[in-house]
Amino acid sequence: MQIVIIGSGNVAYHMAKAFVQNNIALAQIFGRNAQELNKISEELNIPNSTKILVDADLYIICVSDNSVEDVSKLITNKNVLVAHTSGSLPKEILAGEYRKASLYPLQTFSKSKELDYLTIPFFIETENESDKKILFEIASKISKNVMESTYEKRKYIHLTAVFACNFVNHLFSRAKEISDSQEIPFDYFLPLIDETVQKIHEIEPKSAQTGPAVRNDKRILELHEQLLKDESLEIYKTMNHSIQKMYEL
Amino acid sequence: MQIVIIGSGNVAYHMAKAFVQNNIALAQIFGRNAQELNKISEELNIPNSTKILVDADLYIICVSDNSVEDVSKLITNKNVLVAHTSGSLPKEILAGEYRKASLYPLQTFSKSKELDYLTIPFFIETENESDKKILFEIASKISKNVMESTYEKRKYIHLTAVFACNFVNHLFSRAKEISDSQEIPFDYFLPLIDETVQKIHEIEPKSAQTGPAVRNDKRILELHEQLLKDESLEIYKTMNHSIQKMYEL
Repeated sequence: MQIVIIGSGNVAYHMAKAFVQNNIALAQIFGRNAQELNKISEELNIPNSTKILVDADLYIICVSDNSVEDVSKLITNKNVLVAHTSGSLPKEILAGEYRKASLYPLQTFSKSKELDYLTIPFFIETENESDKKILFEIASKISKNVMESTYEKRKYIHLTAVFACNFVNHLFSRAKEISDSQEIPFDYFLPLIDETVQKIHEIEPKSAQTGPAVRNDKRILELHEQLLKDESLEIYKTMNHSIQKMYEL
Repeated sequence: MQIVIIGSGNVAYHMAKAFVQNNIALAQIFGRNAQELNKISEELNIPNSTKILVDADLYIICVSDNSVEDVSKLITNKNVLVAHTSGSLPKEILAGEYRKASLYPLQTFSKSKELDYLTIPFFIETENESDKKILFEIASKISKNVMESTYEKRKYIHLTAVFACNFVNHLFSRAKEISDSQEIPFDYFLPLIDETVQKIHEIEPKSAQTGPAVRNDKRILELHEQLLKDESLEIYKTMNHSIQKMYEL
């Protein structure tokens, strides 16, 4: 089976690396950014091109959601399987006469950060049973968590991930902004952050809630509001309001 | 040196446990809640009382911020050291004629969750050098991260912790609400959450940001807003606005 990965960003890099590490040969990595493609090609020893897409049996599109449709038009072969890796696009966004699929890895990818691919949940959606079998077999060589998911469900998986990952990371950014402003090393907070996350492996997050909002400690809530401004103040108010609504305070 | 812990909640329990584990004898654990006190006493083998506070050299007040002042009035001895464990109260809130101090452990405490006390940063503020030495020596038996901190700085440490811990945990609660609504097991998101946190041990959170807001993917932002309502929708809008402001999108 000939497999091509399209893209040169974080997802493309890690998908390619996961394939190579598990001895699944890649026929090509294809994309626009020659510099990034060359880096990936050299590290993983995969042929690359910015111009000519080779013939293959399976194309995996790993580009930003905005570009998936345009990129999907580059594949003109009919008897092939094409999967995108987006959490929020239907497989029908793929604009060609080939068989369409979605292969969604639920993880946050940065090129500079190594990953344990085995634990990454992969969600698969295909047009028919034989394509499902193909994608399951391939994904199962990378991960021990391969599942089916409809587009409807995948949308909610992605939305949950935005709260649990993207927004959490942004809270870390705003937290660091506050500690930086007082020259407090952000490293001090890493044991607290680690514990916050370890906790929810054992306790429901709703039962693990601590802090001034859930204690309804008005003195501290007011004190904190005086220390904040702009977006951080907005976040502070919105989160406290939401906490107090959840616990009916 | 005779030490008494006042309180029977999460902080009192873990402070008492940290002392006992490091062979620092406790003269008493004192509080209002007889049932909780008895549980702690039995587990850690410390005398307890709800009525008579024994004479001691050091009293550590581990009660909620709202109660610190009232509780501090129970200590009528003059030649003693009294420390509270709050992140957001000045040591002067302690209402007695004794020497006043703050001993702030930067961690989130739940009784049901074991902790590695060695990594918890402790922040100390005292009236004089000899009290500082006393608290440093004691805290250093528990943790390898003992530091001084003024009240001004401690307020910001606590505020940073609210963003990095309390609000992060609430995002997990709201995330789980979304996944529960679609019968998607929240366990699927644990590798993603673990990775989100591991990342910031290596990368600045600002550089680690991913997701539709930082990509300015308007289609997905609109799609997600349609899937949300009430507090979760408010959080979604506030966080995205803050992300886009931070990255000047």
